[in-house]
Amino acid sequence: MGRWEPNARGRLVQAAMELYGERGYEQTTVAEIASRAGLTERTFFRHFADKREVLFWGGGELQELLVSSVADAPDSTAPIDAVAAAFEAAAAQLQERREHSRQRQAIIAANAELRERELIKLESFASALADALRLRGVADTAASLAAEAGVAVFKIAFVRWLATGQPDFPQLIRESFDELKALTAGAGVT
Amino acid sequence: MGRWEPNARGRLVQAAMELYGERGYEQTTVAEIASRAGLTERTFFRHFADKREVLFWGGGELQELLVSSVADAPDSTAPIDAVAAAFEAAAAQLQERREHSRQRQAIIAANAELRERELIKLESFASALADALRLRGVADTAASLAAEAGVAVFKIAFVRWLATGQPDFPQLIRESFDELKALTAGAGVT
Repeated sequence: MGRWEPNARGRLVQAAMELYGERGYEQTTVAEIASRAGLTERTFFRHFADKREVLFWGGGELQELLVSSVADAPDSTAPIDAVAAAFEAAAAQLQERREHSRQRQAIIAANAELRERELIKLESFASALADALRLRGVADTAASLAAEAGVAVFKIAFVRWLATGQPDFPQLIRESFDELKALTAGAGVT
Repeated sequence: MGRWEPNARGRLVQAAMELYGERGYEQTTVAEIASRAGLTERTFFRHFADKREVLFWGGGELQELLVSSVADAPDSTAPIDAVAAAFEAAAAQLQERREHSRQRQAIIAANAELRERELIKLESFASALADALRLRGVADTAASLAAEAGVAVFKIAFVRWLATGQPDFPQLIRESFDELKALTAGAGVT
């Protein structure tokens, strides 16, 4: 096989997701992923450091999108609204790959190590968002609070997006931030 | 040595915290902890499953306190306020062991595996709080949002409590919930 393989990355991701779903993440080897994709292990390692990275490589890109969204928000935007806009932008991007997100979530839910890794990714989002808010001049604690609350909303909206038929993920993000606002204003007494 | 050792548990915790601080968590063995405490390894394992549990055994108790606080809140209490009251109760308990909390936090911050375990503990708090709110009749998403937002506030207030001279942790929890309320109402524009 030649050095260049058309859409090698996409084929590897597809093969890995299939195998993780069929036989479990633990039981799948890099050799099997490469074989299923019709590629060599060497090609796999040109694209990914290990089999876990197939599930997490998009996180860095998403984090950059979150940070740049906060940085680009108009000066008059309240911190919580800058964070909401950032997650709306992230949701618009994730929405293009709903089936991939759904498969990925099922694989992660089935493995303790992957769940931990996912929590660390979200922690990293919160930390990066808080830093981005501080760069806008938001006070230290307010920045951390807005960022962490934003991640909390995102986590819940993400689960709802995959669990329900609602296809408009950015809309779900907006609704969930509105719900947080209502809750902190004292709503929800039964 | 006899089967019963006066305050064996407390001596083991003390010895472990000292050793984790002096030479690092990774580098410390159970044998060394037992020896420093003047006890046998067998006694150690009568109290803890492994050296990690020395740092996390209090989590289950704290979670029970959180859940029972939510369950015991008056019917008229809004979900976010029930969660705030639960973390106030937890803070009152943690406050009695500020120096232990500070040492523990430094040990956890220095080790990736422990940081992951700590995130999982907080995730478990959020899940248990959401379940407790649902038992009060709070709607599914509202329960998850209030619980996750509460954990976010707790995380930040906890760091502030240890980093600042402010000794009144429950007061910091109250202030932080108030700050979240202000932020979600649009405060913080610089």
